[in-house]
Order: sequence, then structure tokens, then C-alpha cells
Amino acid sequence: MSTPTPYTVADYLFDRIAQTGVSDIFGVPGDFNLTFLDNILDNPALRWVGNNNELNAGYAADGYARLRGFAAMVTTFGVGELSAINATGGSYAENVPVLHIVGAPVRFSQDNHLKVHHTLADGNYRHFYEMASHVTCSQAWLTPDNAASEIDRVIRTMLIESRPGYLVLSPDVAAARIGQPVGNIREDVSEFTARNQLAAFEEAATEFLKGKKTTIVADRLIERYHAKQATGEFIASCDLPYATLPWSIGVVDNDSPRYVGAYWASVSPERTRAAVEDAERLITIGVLFTDTATAGFTADIEEADILAVDPHSARVGHTIYGPIAMADALPALTRAVAAAQPQPQPLKQAEPAEAAESNPDEQLRQDDLWEIITTWLPTDATLVADLGTSMFGLAGKPLPKGTESMGQPVWASIGFALPASLGASLAAPERRSVLVSGDGAAQLTVQEISTMLREKTNPIMVIINNEGYTVERAIHGPEAPYNDITTYHWDLVPAAMGGTEETTLVLKARTPNELKQALATAEATRDKLVMVEVIMDRDDIPTTLKNFAASVAKKPQPKN
Amino acid sequence: MSTPTPYTVADYLFDRIAQTGVSDIFGVPGDFNLTFLDNILDNPALRWVGNNNELNAGYAADGYARLRGFAAMVTTFGVGELSAINATGGSYAENVPVLHIVGAPVRFSQDNHLKVHHTLADGNYRHFYEMASHVTCSQAWLTPDNAASEIDRVIRTMLIESRPGYLVLSPDVAAARIGQPVGNIREDVSEFTARNQLAAFEEAATEFLKGKKTTIVADRLIERYHAKQATGEFIASCDLPYATLPWSIGVVDNDSPRYVGAYWASVSPERTRAAVEDAERLITIGVLFTDTATAGFTADIEEADILAVDPHSARVGHTIYGPIAMADALPALTRAVAAAQPQPQPLKQAEPAEAAESNPDEQLRQDDLWEIITTWLPTDATLVADLGTSMFGLAGKPLPKGTESMGQPVWASIGFALPASLGASLAAPERRSVLVSGDGAAQLTVQEISTMLREKTNPIMVIINNEGYTVERAIHGPEAPYNDITTYHWDLVPAAMGGTEETTLVLKARTPNELKQALATAEATRDKLVMVEVIMDRDDIPTTLKNFAASVAKKPQPKN
Repeated sequence: MSTPTPYTVADYLFDRIAQTGVSDIFGVPGDFNLTFLDNILDNPALRWVGNNNELNAGYAADGYARLRGFAAMVTTFGVGELSAINATGGSYAENVPVLHIVGAPVRFSQDNHLKVHHTLADGNYRHFYEMASHVTCSQAWLTPDNAASEIDRVIRTMLIESRPGYLVLSPDVAAARIGQPVGNIREDVSEFTARNQLAAFEEAATEFLKGKKTTIVADRLIERYHAKQATGEFIASCDLPYATLPWSIGVVDNDSPRYVGAYWASVSPERTRAAVEDAERLITIGVLFTDTATAGFTADIEEADILAVDPHSARVGHTIYGPIAMADALPALTRAVAAAQPQPQPLKQAEPAEAAESNPDEQLRQDDLWEIITTWLPTDATLVADLGTSMFGLAGKPLPKGTESMGQPVWASIGFALPASLGASLAAPERRSVLVSGDGAAQLTVQEISTMLREKTNPIMVIINNEGYTVERAIHGPEAPYNDITTYHWDLVPAAMGGTEETTLVLKARTPNELKQALATAEATRDKLVMVEVIMDRDDIPTTLKNFAASVAKKPQPKN
Repeated sequence: MSTPTPYTVADYLFDRIAQTGVSDIFGVPGDFNLTFLDNILDNPALRWVGNNNELNAGYAADGYARLRGFAAMVTTFGVGELSAINATGGSYAENVPVLHIVGAPVRFSQDNHLKVHHTLADGNYRHFYEMASHVTCSQAWLTPDNAASEIDRVIRTMLIESRPGYLVLSPDVAAARIGQPVGNIREDVSEFTARNQLAAFEEAATEFLKGKKTTIVADRLIERYHAKQATGEFIASCDLPYATLPWSIGVVDNDSPRYVGAYWASVSPERTRAAVEDAERLITIGVLFTDTATAGFTADIEEADILAVDPHSARVGHTIYGPIAMADALPALTRAVAAAQPQPQPLKQAEPAEAAESNPDEQLRQDDLWEIITTWLPTDATLVADLGTSMFGLAGKPLPKGTESMGQPVWASIGFALPASLGASLAAPERRSVLVSGDGAAQLTVQEISTMLREKTNPIMVIINNEGYTVERAIHGPEAPYNDITTYHWDLVPAAMGGTEETTLVLKARTPNELKQALATAEATRDKLVMVEVIMDRDDIPTTLKNFAASVAKKPQPKN
């Protein structure tokens, strides 16, 4: 348009979002958000990425936020937002800041309790807001009056909490004129560490660690709370051995002789188990000991022996100090360790790895598969693994330096990875997304391939065709029909969803050699979406999953 | 197994479900529900239907319940149930009783607030129960002690309310031994009409209608509350003219000269508008005047002139009488009308229909499309229409006698129809499901085609390929990129999802003649899933949608 357009609530919101570092907004259009989608198109810092459905939009935004530190999606009232709410639950459980903007009926409809479509037709417009409040750390129902302060509050809280947020925006509110924001919302996130608590923590930590045999465990939350660098510096400053959990290998330097691998409670290699469980003191940094991460709560560790650096507090034995930001706790901990001089927990000899002697031209086995993938992985890859055999196959496997990786070890929602890999491609276009997913998981969200094509992304999609939910077979019902799925003709899937010979390539592998060849071809084909269908035996299960399933089959015990 | 298995909570639950008339249970397996899925396999009255994802399971169950009167689905905790919750919202808004059974972590984990996967890892297991309570009419957290009474209460409430219900079931609770149920839950739904209220209603109705010029309007809720037959009997007992709303044509006999068509407020044909709005008294039966059904609240009707038979009460002018079941109100109303002798509202002359003179061999137009489909529709068809151009194109169009139809005029969630048509096929295998969906809507839930194939259903799927969200273009942003989608190669889609030449047939139509030919071939091909891809102009919009969009573009007014 040629007339100067006034600055509106929608412009304010999208400018604030752009300040977080976001350049792509995900979502699905709907009649209550269409008008303010125009404000995205008009914003020079932002692009609109239309997804195939709202759950996929939520997963894509989650994958994007894991690399960019923030993401935003737009859906419509009721139908759209509820379709996405499982993805938001995942972002909450896994500490990923995704802002969910919901287009709502105009205030006139709300105020008069009109029976409008996309509502429960009961005149009550608050149901979905209340539902969303369970899985978001901050929420606001925007009006022209509160828009500036509430948008700022919600985004600021998300940046501190590293959790999703929720905004309700009606077209009439979106179009209201307001002043432009001042400053940058990222720089405006105020310091919340209490200095006296930090000093008390440092003193307690020094006393706690004095001369004790100690090991460090670091986990994914150091990435979510921007403490990866500080953790690396802390580890480098001392001579203590250190471990990760099975799905956080990449958060620390794996090349040091002090790195003892991935601790996985009762299913750990003995050397790793002993380094962690036999230490007199354990320093955990950003660690969440869930059932999955502890193979069914089998970690043999006493809370009294743990010094825990958590997102917003630090714990020494049974005493909690806070509020302390993770990134603030680490320099204090570095000083405490320097003063206390804990001893490195002595390490056992490494057991020789059992060489997987497979015939390179016979049926590929699960244990070969993950070895081949992790060995091949290009250093510019973002590995996105789905639940099931993929996550379990990759558990504890070291990745080449430089690769990024993501998965959902806590929320564990199958189907997450395919759309998340789209988000990863858009968040870091200089990297290449490598999706690894079972066929059962990929079917949940498969339509998002068409968005990958429209966005001209070039993922490598490794789809394991093993006729169903193999991870569930490992747990219960190996022969039960409920673990079966319909086998897709995967070689037709990219073309069905809009691909052409110019934009897609489909490869198939049944043997170790075929897989290696396919991955090499995929890597060399940088201008296409490449799908590698890997044909596996239905009942072949990674050793890691076998051990895990045996461990969790026991009654859970309330340890960590 | 050869040893006699004990009777458990899961057996009780599934036996009660079978008593409602259900023979198929939808859902997705997960580690917290696997063990009690075995009880479904073991139940001689039930089959397990595994869906491709949980939202699709919810939609399929909804479509099933619309024909069978009840449906059930099973998902897993957190991730699974939240993926389905939009479908449950739709079942709530549209009065469809779908029971959602959620497999939860064992009570030991709950009681000890363990940080288990599929939770928010905050030790709080009640989040999702509270979320579900917004979109279900009854909920229970099952224990061995409360199982029998709570299962009965939840199902009974659902049968009375005709709304979804929610049950949390842990594997340990599912395996607890309990006694078998007594009697049939359907026969056990107690009478709730207050006889004195019913008498008062009859008296007030008689007074209200005495000698007044009167018209009847019936809508979909008469199906949901089992009052379709009673409504037909009431209409047959009097000489009053009657109408439906645009998406409930089939609920009454369309062949009577007293049937004046579908009332759609300001966008009604003049004869229908006058019959309804100019009457001195209006009898509404199971009518919900939403924004969509009234083209943006443009119904010119005074509440004081309405006698409304609603699901659990009846209203005469401003006075509400209840509790009165719809099926109980109708005989009382029949007596009142016989006594009051209201006059039939005089009817205007029918306007001659504008003949759509299209060249049968040129590009098919939207207005031809719906005429051709509704004229062709086999009498054994269950027509399942998605939102967007499909619902608007079909609005007010009479269907051949004997056909069933379903859609989501209130909740209006795009993507509903494809899985719902699977549910319809399984609920009424003697009928043939005819899906009509735009390409944008079909992409949201397209993977469910593979379940159709596994279940050997034979739907006719009419997919309108017009490159995007045409209904949204009609509302805002006709050229905006957010209304574009990636064009699928629809002819490859059934094969990609597991179809073969033996199981699927794909046809394409661009002209009226091609469409008629394709529909005839589809009808004759009863042993396959048949997809008919209809190529349409991107910007061609049904006249009904054009009129509707112009009407709702005005500011809404708080009328009915």
C-alpha cells in the first residue's frame, strides 16, 4: 500500500520477536489470525513459514528454538491452538522457549459471550487459555492497553525460564495503534541472581568438596540455560573426571581423557558407572534424572553427596541456594573447586569395545546402523533423532565434533523429529539437518515433508522401515497387532508430497555397505531433500534398548 | 493363554464400552497402555484399530460415534492425550460422546512424584486431567476401589450429556481384579425429566402458540440427543412449515411441500427467510444459532417469539423449563400444538432456481461441483465433508434420501473429515463413506489413508485440488502467501501410503463430464479405496461462500 501504515500492537509484538533473534515464524492460517499475518509479511526481519498442521508447526518451532534460543508460532483459536498443545507440552518439559500466539475472535464476540465457531459454543472464551497455562510459563490476554507491558513481560519471562509462553491476540487488538518499543528485549532481561545466596553457595560448596573424591556430570539443560560455555570453562579449570547422560554427549568436549562417557545408571559401562556412583561427591550441572535417563530410577546415588547446579538455584547436599542463574553459579563453583581441591575420582580401566563383526553385504543390524550413522555424520550436521529405536540406538554414542543434535528424551513424543528437523534447517541454514526416525514415528507427522520442499531445505532423512513400533515391541507385545503399522512405500512419499526429480532423491539400503554408499551419496547431494530408506528386521533391537527395557521392567524405586 | 485369566478393571471397562454398541476402539499404542490393549484383543466383542496419530484417532472416533452413538479411544499419558485433545474439543462442541482412555504411569510413580517421561518432569501428574476437564463432561482417575462406580458414572453421564468423557487408567489399576458388571449400561441410564416441569412446559407452550402463525426449525442436535424420530413424528402430526439450518438438511424429510429449505439468516433464499423470520412464533428443535449458522449473527428473530426444545430443557419465550429430555419434550409439544392450533406461517412462492449453465467439457466450477456431487450421491453413502469450500459448497444443498452426512459446523477444525470418514466406514460398514475435502484440509491428516487401507475400507475420497486455503482467501488475503500450500501429487498419495493396484484407484477430473464419469467409476468400484482428484481454479469460490463471507465481514451483532 502507498499510504503510511500506522504502528500497531501486531507490529510491536513482531518487532519484539525479531529482537530475540528469530527470523521465521511458524504456524497455520485461520480466520482469527489472517489480518495480523499481514504484519509478518510486512516486517522486514521476519518470514512466514506455513506448516501442514499445527502440531507440526509446534514441533518445527521447538526444533528452531533449540538452535536459535527462541521461536514463535501463530495458530487460530480453539481448533488450531489445541492441535499444537502437545508440542507446547514438549517445549515446557524440555525447557524450550516457543511463543504461541493465538488469533482469537474479536473482543466484541468475547464480551458478549457469542456462540462463535472454534469455541465450545458455551460463551466461555477462557477454556483454552486455562489449558495452555499448564504448559506455558507465562501467558497474557492482550488488549491495546496492556499490550506493550504484557508482551514484554511474557517474552522476558520466557527468556529467563527457557519455557514456552502464550499470547491471545484478537484482530481488533492487533490493529490498535501503539508506540514503538524502546531498546532490545534480550538486553532487557534483568539479572535475577541473589548475590548473598551466591556467596553462601560458594562457601558451602568449598566446605562440601574439600578433599573429596569427586566426579562431574553435565546434561542438556546447560544448553537451554546458556551455560554451555561456562560449563566448559569450569571443566577445563579443574582435573576432575566428567560424564554426560545418554542424550547429552555433545554438551561437553568428548576428546579429553577425563571424559568417561555417558552415565546411564544400571545400564552404564562399568567404568562410567563407577566414576559416577562410587565418587564421594558428585557435581551435577543442568542434570535431570528422569526414569529414561536412569534406566528406570536405577541410579545408585545419594542426594546428600550431590552438588547440583540447576537452572535457577544450586543445591549443596540437602540445602538449596537461590535464586541463582546457572551461568552465575559456575564461576562461583570454579572458585570453590580451586579452594577445596577435591580429588579426581580414580578411574577404572576402559573395557575393550566389542567389535561388531558384521558382514558388510548381509542384512544390516541395529547395532551396526547407529555405529555407521554416528561415524559418518558430517561435522556440519544437525542430527535430529526421533524416539524409539532411534533415540535408544544413539544413546551414549559419541558424535563427531562440531555436529549439533536434538531429541526429546523427557517428553518423548513420537513424531517430533521430522517437523523439528525442518525447524533446525531454517534455524541454521548453514548446517544440514540429518533426521533419523523409525517408520512408525515418521508416519505421525509425515506431511511436513511438503513444507521442507516449499522452503527448499535439503535434509537427509534416514527412515528405518521395520514395520511398526519396535520400541513398544521391546517393552510389551512383540507379536501384538497393535504394534503393527501399514508399511508405506517410502520411495513414493517425497514425490507424493510435491517432490520432483529436481528437488528430491530417494535411496534404499539393506546392508552395511549399501547404507554407507547411500549416506555418501546423500552427503554429496546438497541441493536436494534426500530420503534414505533403511530396511531392517522387524524384531531387531539395539543392544542399548534391550538392556534398557530389561532394566525398566523392574518395579521403579524412588531414587533420584 | 491356557490358564483362566482373572477378570480385571480393564475387562470391566471394555465390557461396559461394548455394551454401548461399540465394536472398534481407536488409538495409538504407548508404553503406559500396552498391557491393557491386550484386554481389547482378548475381548470377543471388540477390535483394536490403530491410527497413525492421536489427533486422527480422535477424529475417527468422533466420526464413528456420530453413527454408533458412542466411541472410545486409547492414548498414552501426556504426549498422546494432548495430541488428541483438539479432537475431543470438537466432540464436546458438537455433542459427540467419545470416551478417551489415557494410559498413565503406575500409581507408584504418581504417589512418589517421580520424574517420568511423558510428564512435565515436575512431579505433578494432574496437569493433563485438568486440561481434559475443559473439554469433557465427566472425568475419573481410576483406582481398583473406585473403578466400577467411576466407569459407570462417566459412561452414564456421557450417554445423557452426549459429550466426551475422560478416564485415567494405569497398567497396575487395569490389572487389578474386580467383579463383573451387572446389567447393561445403556439400559441403566436413568430418566431425568422432571414431570412437573414437563407439564408446566406443555401448558405454557399451548398458551404461547394459540392461533399464532408458526414455523418449525430443526437442527443437528436432534440426532445427538436421539430425538430425530420424535421430531419427525411431531412434524408429521401438524401442518406447520419447517426448515433446517444449512448443515442439517438431512435431519428431516426434505420431500414434503412444507419443507422450506435451509435457513441461513441474511443469506437465506427469500422464501426460507420469510418463513422463519416473519413468523409470529418459531419452534426450534435442537437448534444452535452460531455465527456460522447465522452468517455472522444476522438472524432477525426475537427471543420472545421462540419456543426452543433444547437437549436438557425447553424454553417458552424467556422462561426455561427443565430438566426435560429432548425426546420427552416432543410428545408434550405435539399435544400443545394439537390443542393450540397455531396457523401455518404462509409461504411465499418459490423463486425459480438459476440454472447453472456450464459447458460440461470446460473447467469445472465450484457451483457445478456441489450440484454434481449431491445429485450423484448414492443412497447408501455417508457423506463426510471438511470445512472450507466443501462445507460451504454443501450448505443448504438437499441430499438424496437415505444418505447420512457429517461435518463440523461448530468446532470447524480443518482436517477433521478424512479420519472421520474412516470412523464412519467402520461404524457403518454397510454404507460407503464419501469424503469431500479441499487439498489444504486433507493435508492436515492425510496419513490416515494407510489405516483405511489396513482396515480394508472402501471410501470414495473427493479431493479438491485448488492450491491452498480457498476459504481463507475468501475471508482475507486472496493473494497472500500464507494461504498457499505445497501442491501434492495426489495421484501418488494412496500408493505412497501403502496402496497397490489391487487396493486403490486414483481418478482425476477437470470438467463436469469428467467428474460425472469419475464418480460413476468410483461408485462401481466397490472393492477399492478410490481417490477422485478434482482440479479447480484457485480463486473459484462457491456462491454460498461468497455470500457468507460478505455477510460476516460486517461487525457482528449480538442477536441469536
